[in-house]
Amino acid sequence: MPLPAPLTGVVPPLCTPLTPGGDVDTDSLRTLCERLIGSGVDALFALGSSGETAYLADAQRRTVLRTAVEAAAGRVPVLAGVIDMTTARVLDHARVAAESGADALVATAPFYTRTHPVEIADHFRRIRRGVDLPLFAYDIPVAVHTKLPAATVLDLAEDGTLAGLKDSSGDDGALRRLLVELRTRGLDSRFSVLTGSELAVDGALLAGAHGVVPGLGNVDPAGYVRLYAHARAGRWTEAAAEQDRLAALFAITDVGHEAAMGRSSSALGAFKAALHLLGAINCPATAAPQVPLGDAETKAVSHLLEEGGLL
Amino acid sequence: MPLPAPLTGVVPPLCTPLTPGGDVDTDSLRTLCERLIGSGVDALFALGSSGETAYLADAQRRTVLRTAVEAAAGRVPVLAGVIDMTTARVLDHARVAAESGADALVATAPFYTRTHPVEIADHFRRIRRGVDLPLFAYDIPVAVHTKLPAATVLDLAEDGTLAGLKDSSGDDGALRRLLVELRTRGLDSRFSVLTGSELAVDGALLAGAHGVVPGLGNVDPAGYVRLYAHARAGRWTEAAAEQDRLAALFAITDVGHEAAMGRSSSALGAFKAALHLLGAINCPATAAPQVPLGDAETKAVSHLLEEGGLL
Amino acid sequence: MPLPAPLTGVVPPLCTPLTPGGDVDTDSLRTLCERLIGSGVDALFALGSSGETAYLADAQRRTVLRTAVEAAAGRVPVLAGVIDMTTARVLDHARVAAESGADALVATAPFYTRTHPVEIADHFRRIRRGVDLPLFAYDIPVAVHTKLPAATVLDLAEDGTLAGLKDSSGDDGALRRLLVELRTRGLDSRFSVLTGSELAVDGALLAGAHGVVPGLGNVDPAGYVRLYAHARAGRWTEAAAEQDRLAALFAITDVGHEAAMGRSSSALGAFKAALHLLGAINCPATAAPQVPLGDAETKAVSHLLEEGGLL
Amino acid sequence: MPLPAPLTGVVPPLCTPLTPGGDVDTDSLRTLCERLIGSGVDALFALGSSGETAYLADAQRRTVLRTAVEAAAGRVPVLAGVIDMTTARVLDHARVAAESGADALVATAPFYTRTHPVEIADHFRRIRRGVDLPLFAYDIPVAVHTKLPAATVLDLAEDGTLAGLKDSSGDDGALRRLLVELRTRGLDSRFSVLTGSELAVDGALLAGAHGVVPGLGNVDPAGYVRLYAHARAGRWTEAAAEQDRLAALFAITDVGHEAAMGRSSSALGAFKAALHLLGAINCPATAAPQVPLGDAETKAVSHLLEEGGLL
Repeated sequence: MPLPAPLTGVVPPLCTPLTPGGDVDTDSLRTLCERLIGSGVDALFALGSSGETAYLADAQRRTVLRTAVEAAAGRVPVLAGVIDMTTARVLDHARVAAESGADALVATAPFYTRTHPVEIADHFRRIRRGVDLPLFAYDIPVAVHTKLPAATVLDLAEDGTLAGLKDSSGDDGALRRLLVELRTRGLDSRFSVLTGSELAVDGALLAGAHGVVPGLGNVDPAGYVRLYAHARAGRWTEAAAEQDRLAALFAITDVGHEAAMGRSSSALGAFKAALHLLGAINCPATAAPQVPLGDAETKAVSHLLEEGGLL
Repeated sequence: MPLPAPLTGVVPPLCTPLTPGGDVDTDSLRTLCERLIGSGVDALFALGSSGETAYLADAQRRTVLRTAVEAAAGRVPVLAGVIDMTTARVLDHARVAAESGADALVATAPFYTRTHPVEIADHFRRIRRGVDLPLFAYDIPVAVHTKLPAATVLDLAEDGTLAGLKDSSGDDGALRRLLVELRTRGLDSRFSVLTGSELAVDGALLAGAHGVVPGLGNVDPAGYVRLYAHARAGRWTEAAAEQDRLAALFAITDVGHEAAMGRSSSALGAFKAALHLLGAINCPATAAPQVPLGDAETKAVSHLLEEGGLL
Repeated sequence: MPLPAPLTGVVPPLCTPLTPGGDVDTDSLRTLCERLIGSGVDALFALGSSGETAYLADAQRRTVLRTAVEAAAGRVPVLAGVIDMTTARVLDHARVAAESGADALVATAPFYTRTHPVEIADHFRRIRRGVDLPLFAYDIPVAVHTKLPAATVLDLAEDGTLAGLKDSSGDDGALRRLLVELRTRGLDSRFSVLTGSELAVDGALLAGAHGVVPGLGNVDPAGYVRLYAHARAGRWTEAAAEQDRLAALFAITDVGHEAAMGRSSSALGAFKAALHLLGAINCPATAAPQVPLGDAETKAVSHLLEEGGLL
Repeated sequence: MPLPAPLTGVVPPLCTPLTPGGDVDTDSLRTLCERLIGSGVDALFALGSSGETAYLADAQRRTVLRTAVEAAAGRVPVLAGVIDMTTARVLDHARVAAESGADALVATAPFYTRTHPVEIADHFRRIRRGVDLPLFAYDIPVAVHTKLPAATVLDLAEDGTLAGLKDSSGDDGALRRLLVELRTRGLDSRFSVLTGSELAVDGALLAGAHGVVPGLGNVDPAGYVRLYAHARAGRWTEAAAEQDRLAALFAITDVGHEAAMGRSSSALGAFKAALHLLGAINCPATAAPQVPLGDAETKAVSHLLEEGGLL
């Protein structure tokens, strides 16, 4: 289905359910998609960071995307992450994504290598030229280790290379300046800014962001849908209260102790533990070599879900 | 004067006007204080990063603080930055600040040295015990190169060591979680969270922050006072519009080219160029070895002030 | 051919010659391999950072490795980089490498994702179990953004997971401590430490490193072979003089200006420009989106090659 | 006494002995100076990072420097660290250092603030003009969070601003290129490069460095004096063996666990515990808020001193 321009609303970055043996659990993935769509989300983002894309082999990525597209069945658009180190590799993923029915692509700047704004702009232009799908830039310095320069984003918005930005930089000041500048240039009606800062969505929407890509939205999609609706209706106090509740729920990502595992293990492990406890997926396993949560940690997740009114 | 608990509102970090020869221009500083107080700010923060404190000799720091305290004349409280590498040095500044009439202290974690949360907590406790003034923690990773851990801040809020936090980390997610946790523990009625993210103040206030410490508030204090008033009255759309205008004005900090000078030179140089153009200070000089703005850059600042309705 | 244990000597990380259209130029690659082997290098490392591996699609990687293995023809072992984000993806490359005739694998810690020492150790163990080839850890924080902890390397050396380390961390103190500890544990006779710090090879060999993986060794393999021979013979003054000459030659990597391109473009562009000028490859192109060197820059490379006695 | 140009040899960065109450223990400091001079060191560096300078109040710094100058009594020159955030503050320390009899100054680039190479060069030129003593640049990115650009160092060497460099960057490649370039320009006969990488001194001397500033040299000055003598005499194998022994001894800095304290606490705590065990100082206390070593940790230091043949 054609992507709305600009894309707005709640776009959860799909978790990738796995079997105990580490295969993609397509049944659970379908259930998860159904749960999210049923909660009123506006699009699905498959193969993002929350989807453990860095951990998935190419064949697994393909399976995830096809399953999500089938499950969406044209009810909501599906964005596909095409996460890889540089242009040629991203283009290979992009071609597969297009064949698999993705409605848009989401790509980062080059990583692993030491890059430059001129190269980053060329990178996005080559991807856009190579595969005819709307393209989102994914700004996630914690993974890519560079921040997309605002000037580059504005150039690529202006010339039509980019259809939008997923901003997981957590830099609220830079985001505000970008939003103001997009409006000044009249680009905000076709260029979509989605915040990945899932704990400050009310503020981002107040600042003019078009939507949100919340990892926690796998666990509580209805919460984010309500938050978005409150904001659109100008009920800012209610939006803030909903965000506060979701911020408290985010404590599930801290039950795994940082002395024992990486941040990916604790956050994605918690999302999956919660989905498993909620009956949305069959198995809480994360991909190797992430460290699984233990029983006490799962119990702590369960307790927080109860506190948050989800269980 | 006793500091309100919690401190709320607009607390500009005072620029430090200098003479062409590099001395503190106390006349201009008094004029600037008068301008800010006349605009309705709630307190003054002397000797912060915007005050070029890193560039000032001890005697200059003392002059700045005494002048600000005299100028405030009990109408608003004066917070004093006590910026130095570790505890003993901070305590020396803190004693001078107390003698000079400061109403509260603002200190960072240790820097230059490689530190640890246990040491950071001990650092703040020793400062608090050493000088009997309310103490704010100043979280500014871009300068200090560590982020204050939320657990440390919460411990120090709980035991009364800290009266508040100035958060210049730009990490909106962490800020939200801290605010929620402070409310959960009932600490928000005595512990003040002031955001230093001057371009996302509407969002921070919506999230529950008590106030803002905006460098740009030297230039447009009335704008921040309006923004704060809108927010407190629940006029979020108006607050956002005011923030948008201020975010556009912040472009003055980019007129100095990053190939020619550091970020401190371009941002503080722009604040001072603007204050000079507005007639608020006698000379736009910044402290050595910062690079001064040139004529073209000053003209660009002037143009942006006109666009922002200030000139 | 079986890899010597420990691997010693000069192991250049093969550049990947490309055609003007961006395909792998297998003819040039064969010529390059022949040139290196003819200069007396001890092994070839295909698909490392100097090989632009981050820029190569999977099919191109396969072509590179097969070509190198055929060109080596059993005269020297071929190590294969299996550079990817996490375990499953690395294992896919490792299987292809094994099928293509690689004699050993070289893998980094997980990147893009936020990882942990426990996960890093598990990552290497899974790779070692998955494909039966000697495995080297590749410590390159400038790309991977974590430094391999010494304790992890020692554990994996002790239990036989790793056959060696390619240390491109540039942390000479950590390298020294590791070398001392390996000798203390009697592991230095089977665990190979290869330095990637191509400008301090004399010091690394003096400290006990087994060999070197010099990117500049593509351009001047004979220089590194001489340097290594001097060091092994205890002719340290001569080794240092050779290293000094090579350090001066390394100035070719600076002819591309950092305002115009990334460090990858300038360094790999210079290596290829030099190889082209020396007649070793047909075309100096680097992979997109790297910025190519211009005429003036190529002339500067040429001048430095003359100064270094190579042209 | 006039500083040799270039300064060469072993220049230990003096630890600052403290009393249990946190005052400077001048008796112990004199004993320590005597011990170092008696071991044959070539100069003393007071008020460096190993001297806990970041932790010392101005009056304490003055006491340390005066005591060191008196203890040296003209037998070896005394270099004085003038560690502070920016130019004006450094100049105040520099004037005190000159009055206190220092033979040279050691200053870092500006820190806390965001700086630029143009500003860094101006900073050093102003210090040199302000106080007429030979000036060393102190490159310590782990504390200052910028690396001194080679071009800046070369400019300041060429124009006579700097008499030398203390390189604690740990970047062996950059060091090698700098040394080669200094020789090419004929500057190595008056500009002194001292490595602070105390575990790779043999390699640095082989590369042409003029000397070393080893924190561990407080504990084992004779070891570094022997290492330096071996290197100067071309006995590289013996130099390497001595360096290996010292690298093993450096394990004392790891007895404090990183989960319980910062790196400063564990390293400086270990140096002082060792000096106390060796009878060189009266009390092993480090300055607050560093975490002191416990009994088990002190025992581990003692054990390592025995293994290293010092106890």
